[in-house]
Amino acid sequence: MEAALDELIAALRCLPGVGVRSARRMALHLLERDRQGGRRLSQALDVAVETIGHCSVCRTLTASDTCPRCLDAGRDRGVICVVENPGDVLAIENATDYRGLFHVLLGRLSPLDGIGPEQLGLDRLEQRFRQHAVRELILATNASVEGEVTAHYLSEMAARHGIRATRIAQGVPSGGELEYLDSGTLNQALSGRRDY
Amino acid sequence: MEAALDELIAALRCLPGVGVRSARRMALHLLERDRQGGRRLSQALDVAVETIGHCSVCRTLTASDTCPRCLDAGRDRGVICVVENPGDVLAIENATDYRGLFHVLLGRLSPLDGIGPEQLGLDRLEQRFRQHAVRELILATNASVEGEVTAHYLSEMAARHGIRATRIAQGVPSGGELEYLDSGTLNQALSGRRDY
Repeated sequence: MEAALDELIAALRCLPGVGVRSARRMALHLLERDRQGGRRLSQALDVAVETIGHCSVCRTLTASDTCPRCLDAGRDRGVICVVENPGDVLAIENATDYRGLFHVLLGRLSPLDGIGPEQLGLDRLEQRFRQHAVRELILATNASVEGEVTAHYLSEMAARHGIRATRIAQGVPSGGELEYLDSGTLNQALSGRRDY
Repeated sequence: MEAALDELIAALRCLPGVGVRSARRMALHLLERDRQGGRRLSQALDVAVETIGHCSVCRTLTASDTCPRCLDAGRDRGVICVVENPGDVLAIENATDYRGLFHVLLGRLSPLDGIGPEQLGLDRLEQRFRQHAVRELILATNASVEGEVTAHYLSEMAARHGIRATRIAQGVPSGGELEYLDSGTLNQALSGRRDY
């Protein structure tokens, strides 16, 4: 076999969800039908890997020391939304009209894996509590066990600073049919019911 | 948003089967968890796009003028297997112990799209008929309408040179259950039955 082709197929497998067969299909597609796309991807990877780091304030991915979001004077500095990953920031920004700031944990509390408050940048978050008049901390960690534990820890931290902590709603997803929901979600939806 | 991240997400979409969401997931995965993999992929793409071309004999993808397979003296020069794409060569090489040579059409006959015998390198294939004592031409084009038309054309070409043409078998795929087969396959399987 061809070494350069083998190496390209092997390298494509570092992408999540890409197995041997997909990697082979991608490699052949690029070489047979889209060499320009291959060149573009190579360059974009180079630039991104070399320039993108973490924001010194909110820890999301950025090519600057402080991300454009944290520098944006039009955003409400009184609200901080805490999420687990940079992908969660993108999801919220794309789907909602949220105009506050973020704090990205880059993980979740997991003492067994050695992930405590320091690894999640919570010292930096407390600094921000002191620097700005933060009114509300939105807990937008995942609805998993670790996400809930982390949200609980953050709510206690907020309480110590006299800041209101809110948790994003859990319940029936938009378009969801009750018949097909798991019991955990259905219980959340029922116990979290609101006046109509 | 970050320009370098946006560009990486856009560039990843040139991969087949990758939409906006997968591209975003891939970009974040590389930046958050596998920068080394990102660097490796960038370089592998560079090398592959710049060095890999088509073999001057069989037209498969190769970084040399003539691919290692065509140069391999241990292969039977009397048998040529005709396939549509370089991926078919890989599939046959990985799955079978075929030790003859190949001819890659890089397409299939499609007069309406302006794809005739010249575009498929059939002049070069006929040269090979004359240069070497080719005994058998294995028609391994896809089992689609165009694949069948192409196979038929190739069989007539082989006949003109007094070469035996064979077609790969069509029928029930390995592990296939009759109950779930389409009628075309079932008809092929029945009409192609062999003594047991």
